[in-house]
Amino acid sequence: MPPDYFSGENLTQYPFISPIQASIQEVEDLMRSQARDRHPELQAALDHLIIAGGKRVRPTLVLLTGNMLGAEHDRLIKTAAAVEMLHTATLVHDDLIDGALLRRGNPTLNSHWSPAATVLTGDFIFARAAKLAAETDCLPLMKLFAETLAIIVNGELTQLFSSRGLANRENYDQRIYAKTASLFEMSARAAAMISPVDPAKVEKMRQFGRNIGMAFQILDDILDFTGDQEAVGKPVGSDLLQGLITLPTLYFIEKYPQDANVVTLLNGNFSREPKAMTNLVQSIRESESIELSLNNARSLVEEAILILNQMPAGEERQALEDLARYIVDRKN
Amino acid sequence: MPPDYFSGENLTQYPFISPIQASIQEVEDLMRSQARDRHPELQAALDHLIIAGGKRVRPTLVLLTGNMLGAEHDRLIKTAAAVEMLHTATLVHDDLIDGALLRRGNPTLNSHWSPAATVLTGDFIFARAAKLAAETDCLPLMKLFAETLAIIVNGELTQLFSSRGLANRENYDQRIYAKTASLFEMSARAAAMISPVDPAKVEKMRQFGRNIGMAFQILDDILDFTGDQEAVGKPVGSDLLQGLITLPTLYFIEKYPQDANVVTLLNGNFSREPKAMTNLVQSIRESESIELSLNNARSLVEEAILILNQMPAGEERQALEDLARYIVDRKN
Repeated sequence: MPPDYFSGENLTQYPFISPIQASIQEVEDLMRSQARDRHPELQAALDHLIIAGGKRVRPTLVLLTGNMLGAEHDRLIKTAAAVEMLHTATLVHDDLIDGALLRRGNPTLNSHWSPAATVLTGDFIFARAAKLAAETDCLPLMKLFAETLAIIVNGELTQLFSSRGLANRENYDQRIYAKTASLFEMSARAAAMISPVDPAKVEKMRQFGRNIGMAFQILDDILDFTGDQEAVGKPVGSDLLQGLITLPTLYFIEKYPQDANVVTLLNGNFSREPKAMTNLVQSIRESESIELSLNNARSLVEEAILILNQMPAGEERQALEDLARYIVDRKN
Repeated sequence: MPPDYFSGENLTQYPFISPIQASIQEVEDLMRSQARDRHPELQAALDHLIIAGGKRVRPTLVLLTGNMLGAEHDRLIKTAAAVEMLHTATLVHDDLIDGALLRRGNPTLNSHWSPAATVLTGDFIFARAAKLAAETDCLPLMKLFAETLAIIVNGELTQLFSSRGLANRENYDQRIYAKTASLFEMSARAAAMISPVDPAKVEKMRQFGRNIGMAFQILDDILDFTGDQEAVGKPVGSDLLQGLITLPTLYFIEKYPQDANVVTLLNGNFSREPKAMTNLVQSIRESESIELSLNNARSLVEEAILILNQMPAGEERQALEDLARYIVDRKN
């Protein structure tokens, strides 16, 4: 397999990974073992998904939080694997729904499998994620797991049924919470739940996870405008070209409501006027909307770090702070 | 809504329902409430699925078992709703995969919704099933729930990847266990798990559930040949016409390996020779294979009743015996 098969960056080169490097490997091994004794095609699909990888930000968040708070190792590995399997399952169904052929530069399952096999593989991964969550022997974690899945799916359905070209900050925040921050929140919260700490600390880590999750999605939405097209793996401005309004666009609309391309967008004519949308993408890239969005993500992270500072000091806390800063500094 | 909208029979006219009639209503209400405060389209979809109904055999099995063994009422209702939601979610994805437009005579979700919305609605129902299972506060039940989902989905994937026109009794048993009996097994076992009984009783009820589940699927496979086409909602012999070999066909192959249409089937030419398959359906209908299959289902049920007789006597045990007999006596 050529090295550039992994075009989706993973985090191994970052110092905040070092305290948990070996544990990430354990998490991946546990994920891969979930199709053992099942149909060989299923094992192949799971291997493909795991090799294609991703940043593993969520298991990193689980492992650092749990280690900082004294969680038992085996339960922590299971929690991290459950979170990443849940994430993987939602991606499999998402890619099918979007008809995406590539994710992180790798072929998606649905690009070479039938829709039927893709739906079922996603279902199987859900089932294994639920099993891993149950094996933590922590009922509140299990409930959180089920509730988070419901939030993610309800968010996708809401987006599916909503007309494009209409958005406000409240909708945007709800959408990115459901899409991304809910699972970051769950990651930090679940790791704290299985740790010997009081409920106040669990609540604080929940807030930490939520904040960096919101910041993570805002960065994704910024990178959709500014990112290196190859690293991001999508055309520049792809959200807006599909009529999806994210934070940079919201700031731009607020500042330039009379801009002709903004008017086209708000009239719901984005699909009939691709040239106007391409121009609007360019205007937004060059505007202060990018910096305003970035500041927004940065304040979420700064708030998260203030909360984090109430946790036990040490290598893991430092690594979590570095992870939080990485989230707003990253280039893809 | 015309009365014949409910063409899928429910069990209300059977005496074994009377001890739990009110509880079934509670289960349906709990199922319906699972989309509260979510997107209105999701609530509409769930209402549609619940009104379209089905026999509610699985919740009936849960409720009668739990009441017989002294389960706490609220946990039992949640267990029954979790089982039926899990069943419903797998049907939603199945119908999408099969491109089925009708189920039990009612339009399927995918017949009027997009595949995207159908995938996500199935996912949402999985999430709510998992939440209900977690709310029983019984970790072994939660693990059983996740494992059963994995068995069902792995079974579907295996069927998807297997070439048609090839089968033996072992494959058949594995397939109908994964497809149907695993969830019957879970229903009876889960209800026993949340009851104040020893593990030996839980194990016996697991066997009871498995046996009547195997019998249930064998009956479905017989009715595919013999059933009233309108009541079953599919053309006669639809399984075999699609190259799917079930128990009546297995008996027929064993008895008449030289039959020209059998040879066509075993050569994998079923799709190129529809006339041969229609003739084979007719031959099987008129052969002793139907009675042999029925005897098979009947012995599974008799074995189940012997196990059941080791449970506490009373109205519920009698109702479970009646339910088991209904499973092999039913006409649709």
